Amino acid sequence: MSDAHQTNPYEIGLAKNAANFQPLTPLTFLERAAAVFPRHTAIVHGGLRRSYAEFYARSRRLASALAAHGIGRNDTVSAMLANTPAMLECHYGVPMIGAVLNTLNTRLDAKILAFTLDHAETKALIVDREFAPVIGDALNQAKVKPILIDYDDPQFTGPGERLGKIEYEDLLASGDPGFSWSSPNDEWDAITLNYTSGTTGNPKGVVYHHRGAALLAQGNVIVSSMAKHPVYLWTLPMFHCNGWCFPWSISVVAGTHVCLRQVRAAAIYELIAREGVTHLCGAPIVMSTLLNAPPPERKKLPHRIAFFTAAAPPPEAVLAAMKEAGFEVTHLYGLTETYGPAVVNDWQSDWDLLPAAEQAAKKARQGVRYGALDALTVMDPVTMAPVPADGESIGEVMFRGNVVMKGYLKNERATAEAFAGGWFHSGDLGVLHEDGYVQLKDRSKDIIISGGENISSIEVEDALFKHPAVELAAVVAKPDEKWGETPCAFVELKPGMKATTQDLLEWCREHLARYKCPRVIVFAEIPKTSTGKVQKFVLRERAKELSA
Amino acid sequence: MSDAHQTNPYEIGLAKNAANFQPLTPLTFLERAAAVFPRHTAIVHGGLRRSYAEFYARSRRLASALAAHGIGRNDTVSAMLANTPAMLECHYGVPMIGAVLNTLNTRLDAKILAFTLDHAETKALIVDREFAPVIGDALNQAKVKPILIDYDDPQFTGPGERLGKIEYEDLLASGDPGFSWSSPNDEWDAITLNYTSGTTGNPKGVVYHHRGAALLAQGNVIVSSMAKHPVYLWTLPMFHCNGWCFPWSISVVAGTHVCLRQVRAAAIYELIAREGVTHLCGAPIVMSTLLNAPPPERKKLPHRIAFFTAAAPPPEAVLAAMKEAGFEVTHLYGLTETYGPAVVNDWQSDWDLLPAAEQAAKKARQGVRYGALDALTVMDPVTMAPVPADGESIGEVMFRGNVVMKGYLKNERATAEAFAGGWFHSGDLGVLHEDGYVQLKDRSKDIIISGGENISSIEVEDALFKHPAVELAAVVAKPDEKWGETPCAFVELKPGMKATTQDLLEWCREHLARYKCPRVIVFAEIPKTSTGKVQKFVLRERAKELSA
Repeated sequence: MSDAHQTNPYEIGLAKNAANFQPLTPLTFLERAAAVFPRHTAIVHGGLRRSYAEFYARSRRLASALAAHGIGRNDTVSAMLANTPAMLECHYGVPMIGAVLNTLNTRLDAKILAFTLDHAETKALIVDREFAPVIGDALNQAKVKPILIDYDDPQFTGPGERLGKIEYEDLLASGDPGFSWSSPNDEWDAITLNYTSGTTGNPKGVVYHHRGAALLAQGNVIVSSMAKHPVYLWTLPMFHCNGWCFPWSISVVAGTHVCLRQVRAAAIYELIAREGVTHLCGAPIVMSTLLNAPPPERKKLPHRIAFFTAAAPPPEAVLAAMKEAGFEVTHLYGLTETYGPAVVNDWQSDWDLLPAAEQAAKKARQGVRYGALDALTVMDPVTMAPVPADGESIGEVMFRGNVVMKGYLKNERATAEAFAGGWFHSGDLGVLHEDGYVQLKDRSKDIIISGGENISSIEVEDALFKHPAVELAAVVAKPDEKWGETPCAFVELKPGMKATTQDLLEWCREHLARYKCPRVIVFAEIPKTSTGKVQKFVLRERAKELSA
Repeated sequence: MSDAHQTNPYEIGLAKNAANFQPLTPLTFLERAAAVFPRHTAIVHGGLRRSYAEFYARSRRLASALAAHGIGRNDTVSAMLANTPAMLECHYGVPMIGAVLNTLNTRLDAKILAFTLDHAETKALIVDREFAPVIGDALNQAKVKPILIDYDDPQFTGPGERLGKIEYEDLLASGDPGFSWSSPNDEWDAITLNYTSGTTGNPKGVVYHHRGAALLAQGNVIVSSMAKHPVYLWTLPMFHCNGWCFPWSISVVAGTHVCLRQVRAAAIYELIAREGVTHLCGAPIVMSTLLNAPPPERKKLPHRIAFFTAAAPPPEAVLAAMKEAGFEVTHLYGLTETYGPAVVNDWQSDWDLLPAAEQAAKKARQGVRYGALDALTVMDPVTMAPVPADGESIGEVMFRGNVVMKGYLKNERATAEAFAGGWFHSGDLGVLHEDGYVQLKDRSKDIIISGGENISSIEVEDALFKHPAVELAAVVAKPDEKWGETPCAFVELKPGMKATTQDLLEWCREHLARYKCPRVIVFAEIPKTSTGKVQKFVLRERAKELSA
């Protein structure tokens, strides 16, 4: 027919070159924002305002100064920082020289921090003055001797100390604002290292790459329909999955970061009003903080504000109160291993017509994959067969795609286990609803098995949450001679509200099958992890003691 | 310090696998939209409405049916289609089997179509009944004998014929709606083939890949701040750079495609009102069509509508009229080689405060890179040194990044020339403004050199456009014994408006330096390419005849 070819014509002379192939990286997002919107406010922190030109120049200074101290490709730079401008600069300056940013959870103790620094082989460590004492302890226990950089945030007024000889601002002053950084050699190169909170055993070091960070950062923008120039308030810790990649997302749309050291209702309401905040993220505890603020601290919202939550399904009462207060809540789901959220409760417009309780039930489901994730399903982890989409068959939630980690650092066995069969095994148990939405049904260890029946602790908690006096509820298994396990509920009441054990038990019987009702109700403060998740392993220990 | 490693720990045990690496492709966008929003309207065409479930099922039918006819990886499937549902299905069904979609410009003549089919080595050809005659002629001249598939669009009521034995709907009926298609082996694999309009010489076959198509499709969503469920009207031909990748963008946000065979004002206004159109794209001619519609055809817009234009800077008067009519115009720029638009006139909020004329001058600039493009600059094409950002120094506009083509099919020399020095050489001349925005100053052959002075034809056209009676103006060089060249203007007047040569010459003298004023003004219909670009090479011939 046509000219004969040895090979298919699409296979010849169409190779990659610098003009048509560049590694994906979120670093170019900041470069672009600084080039196009140099005077737009990039960062607000107390009275401080920095433009995109300044943000970019300071990130380049940081990169060049770290390079001058011998930090380079695949070296770990750890950061023990609150949600401050320095933390944002680290998200760009560190990977600009091919180094890997390891953000430390500021609520951890010295022992686990020492483990982390050693495991990460930290070469440089940037420490906020507030956390100098615990880091000092950790360094005494650790083997590594990183270069120490002290960060003295003017917004921190408490006590603190200097650990090293290098002050962050001096370091930046020594750097080059025009530093000619380079994109990674390969978009598969590591960009950050995030340790899992590890409720048992040693934390694992989750490695992210430039490709995944760029794709999830854009995915956030698309999932949230985020228009140009949003104002983003930092109520989510940036040490947590790199703030769900929002330090990079905001550059995509040249938005303003409003920093915040501590999640306090008065400050949040004030910043919303003063800075015109449009978006914020946080665990359910942030919603409680907002809703339970004393009236003088609350301000009327200037416009509807998008709130993204994850870690636990938002209870109906909280959703209703948030809506009333002017927040549009979207439920996200993901794990450290998936760059933070990779699943969204993508709202169907016809759900608007449902009664509030049914809307809340829809919103409690974790949802569907981000566009940036290739596949999400629920499978039998042994046979790798998907469960029927019936909303009842429980399996393990599995992820596949470019926003799944590279793997666990120096832990080939855990990496291989996590990726067995070509899917990331989340360890979360869930169901697939008929419409394809995933809903979690506890982690395997959170399921309560009573008289051979599986009880979802989430379902019991949901029932308790609906009681008007309940602020927080957590349900775990209590060993039981007769039934094997029975549900044991820990409850925090709202300030000024009252409810007795009897009240709550009756409430549960009205709302749940009898076998699912808690046998014991404990009124007590519920322990939470540094990222706001309920520490069920602590509660399980207490429940065990109750049976002893 | 820490455990010694033979290699850096980030280099070990963190390889790609199916769980954490998948090829980028826009095909998964449709899969997701169909999974999450199966009942949402994906396509409207006259009275026809198809859901995302149907759109996806039909695309899979197409893929499986083409596979059954022996079409496979790296085979070219050409499509001679209007903006119809079949054209959208081709954008997914063809690449689902690794084949390459080649959309044909429906306004081309048989000779050039025959060249294209032969050059593309077309294996299958899908033809709308309307274009059967010209394709019949082309096939008589061509060497290839593709499988012929006739598409009989119920919205086409004119004459036409069947060329082959396979009807598109029968083909789909024979296909499998649950066909298990696969992502490309490699995201660098070809997805489409677009021929340049080639004002001189043979057209060149521009090859796009899955990676670039996915990134530009998302880039469109981000650049246009496109929220979930937009309603997109097809006033831009889909055969033109794959409709600037919007057939894929709309799936990202689960929007509705409103098809349109022909750009007619009455139909556009009616569809805007009936379907609640939110976005549309088109060359400036589409804006003229909208603005010059007779009053009975015009309808008040139900809300502000985003209009994206490219190909020529929108003149001030047109911008003002579009704004008045309720359209928000954004100026984009790109080439077939850059997947359509890769540059956006990203609006600065402080420009809102400028007088209308200055706003228009800002908007006339081509702008800055999409986030999906890595770099955009203006350079001396010989030294590859960037021009000073002074708004005056002319150089060649250069692109670099993942939304630059793989290269020209079977044309290694042209590919090498286009990518010389690691940048894509656009052939467009422009300047870099102080703020980094690029502005075109004609293609090299459009510059008029008069008495040794360079005259930008765009500048002269802009002056003419500002005259209230001028609908369209195109300025080319006319050979001149004394000056070498002088500007020669071709002008179309608005219906019912009058202006004499003398009026326009005086107008130009008021608005331009004397040496830039046209010496000749010709009132005539201006020839345009099939994509709405003025055919300056035709005008240059006419101007030559005028001097003879």
